[in-house]
Amino acid sequence: MEIPTFDDALAARERIAPHIHRTPVLTSTMLNELTGAQLFFKCENFQKAGAFKVRGASNAVFGLSDEMAKNGVATHSSGNHALSLSYAAGRRGIPCHVVMPRTAPQAKKDAVIGYGGTITECDPSTSSREEVFARVHTRTGADFVHPYNDARVIAGQATCSMELLEQTDGLDAVVAPIGGGGMISGTCLSLSSLAPEVKIYAAEPAQADDAARSLAAGHIIADDAPDTVADGLKVPLKDLTWHFVSRFVAAIPTASEAQIVEAMKLIWKRMKIVMEPSSAVPLAVILNNRALFAGKRVGVIITGGNVDLDRLPWMQG
Amino acid sequence: MEIPTFDDALAARERIAPHIHRTPVLTSTMLNELTGAQLFFKCENFQKAGAFKVRGASNAVFGLSDEMAKNGVATHSSGNHALSLSYAAGRRGIPCHVVMPRTAPQAKKDAVIGYGGTITECDPSTSSREEVFARVHTRTGADFVHPYNDARVIAGQATCSMELLEQTDGLDAVVAPIGGGGMISGTCLSLSSLAPEVKIYAAEPAQADDAARSLAAGHIIADDAPDTVADGLKVPLKDLTWHFVSRFVAAIPTASEAQIVEAMKLIWKRMKIVMEPSSAVPLAVILNNRALFAGKRVGVIITGGNVDLDRLPWMQG
Repeated sequence: MEIPTFDDALAARERIAPHIHRTPVLTSTMLNELTGAQLFFKCENFQKAGAFKVRGASNAVFGLSDEMAKNGVATHSSGNHALSLSYAAGRRGIPCHVVMPRTAPQAKKDAVIGYGGTITECDPSTSSREEVFARVHTRTGADFVHPYNDARVIAGQATCSMELLEQTDGLDAVVAPIGGGGMISGTCLSLSSLAPEVKIYAAEPAQADDAARSLAAGHIIADDAPDTVADGLKVPLKDLTWHFVSRFVAAIPTASEAQIVEAMKLIWKRMKIVMEPSSAVPLAVILNNRALFAGKRVGVIITGGNVDLDRLPWMQG
Repeated sequence: MEIPTFDDALAARERIAPHIHRTPVLTSTMLNELTGAQLFFKCENFQKAGAFKVRGASNAVFGLSDEMAKNGVATHSSGNHALSLSYAAGRRGIPCHVVMPRTAPQAKKDAVIGYGGTITECDPSTSSREEVFARVHTRTGADFVHPYNDARVIAGQATCSMELLEQTDGLDAVVAPIGGGGMISGTCLSLSSLAPEVKIYAAEPAQADDAARSLAAGHIIADDAPDTVADGLKVPLKDLTWHFVSRFVAAIPTASEAQIVEAMKLIWKRMKIVMEPSSAVPLAVILNNRALFAGKRVGVIITGGNVDLDRLPWMQG
């Protein structure tokens, strides 16, 4: 296990700067009044490819030697990592092989192809995905870039909270959603060096609370296919992200599905931004744990904006 | 008829600065590629009260003498002007009387009340509105702030394109939606002084194209209740706005309802911002008149973001 260092994060920052946006930090008087906190929203929904994932993906792609890069990169993902890796590989002009379940949304498949990626479909099961990915990996000789359990990816994600610190005048806490733990690990990596006094909270859906239970138990607990509207947060922690979560995360508060959808709608309505259900989990837990955040200056990571406009969560059911 | 001058716009700018946002200008690589133009989106959907209308409303409210202000302000509007005038009056601590049709969306009524405004309901007809408004006006002695045919309002709206000019490095054209013509008139007021070489285009729904027909005919043509998804653009030109439109607007291209909805969805999806159907009309006409804008640097006014998230146009029908 290669644990990324703060120097890796600094190198990542320089490496990816030409390929990503320095996203804006937005505030909302109304949401401050509602929560009693001062909230600073880091808007990665405005990021290239629509999500923070492009930071880690770009760091992996542009960190490859020319020799290693010539066979391209490969990954398995039905979400933002697939788009982001395709985007970064396209910028470098190298192949990107993505294994996606055939059931993945057509819009995501179209986006991967639009960025120049190649899709190999698998069945929507872990065994099929692993089997198909192994085949693609062997055939292509491409470099495997895991969506989150990869030192280069975590170092890339760390650049997000580095920017957030510069864009705000001191913070008491940062809250980011947790799925596999890539964004949270990057946040731990940068804040533990730059601002160790800032408390790091991971926000998780109650219906997919494996990270919260892992933290309580002191070891990784992985659930099999939890169900939540926050579709980016269904994956489990892995050894590298557990390293950071277990050492640096203050707490993992949770929110119900209804609270997540309500928080999402509140952000759309009041801040006029389009973001994913996963990105609403931090506001949902802040509203759900008022005493923890009231009076504090709180950074909130809006992780992405790739949502299906034809299937918004408050329209269903 | 009192025609506002550029000095009025400069005074407005200073007067309203403490009460409004200097909204950001966003760009999109993808939309530039799609249109062949360089587009600069002035995001008034992020404005206080969710729309540019707060500029004109604030200029009217904060321009009143203490003597005139004590009876408050009054208007008739079922849209963003009602919210904006209530917001501005609330900031000054004076009464705001709004006449709204009883059929107006509850969300808009709630917002007016939330800002401290008082609503008097009328039937959804011009005669009822005028009759009820006359009664409210007489009873309260409040100052009437028309949604657009008011020199103070136009001078306030002019501050939007003043900012846009500063935030971009030279423009060939500006495109804004046209309903009653308040935003377009303000744009004419500032650009005719600051940058007369910039062409001003008003964008209008084909189903509510009274301004386009007015410009062609050389006199105001007012339709009775046109029907369009761009619900902010149903009202006709009046003498003051006609003054500006007839002198300074280069052309009024139109777009179909389907094109407007498609452009709206494209902006939501690609720019990750929540904005109103009315605000999508400029992009719809740019896509519809590619040759007119290709290769040009084009400012696009996103006029507001107050949309009913439970009734998005692509969800209906």
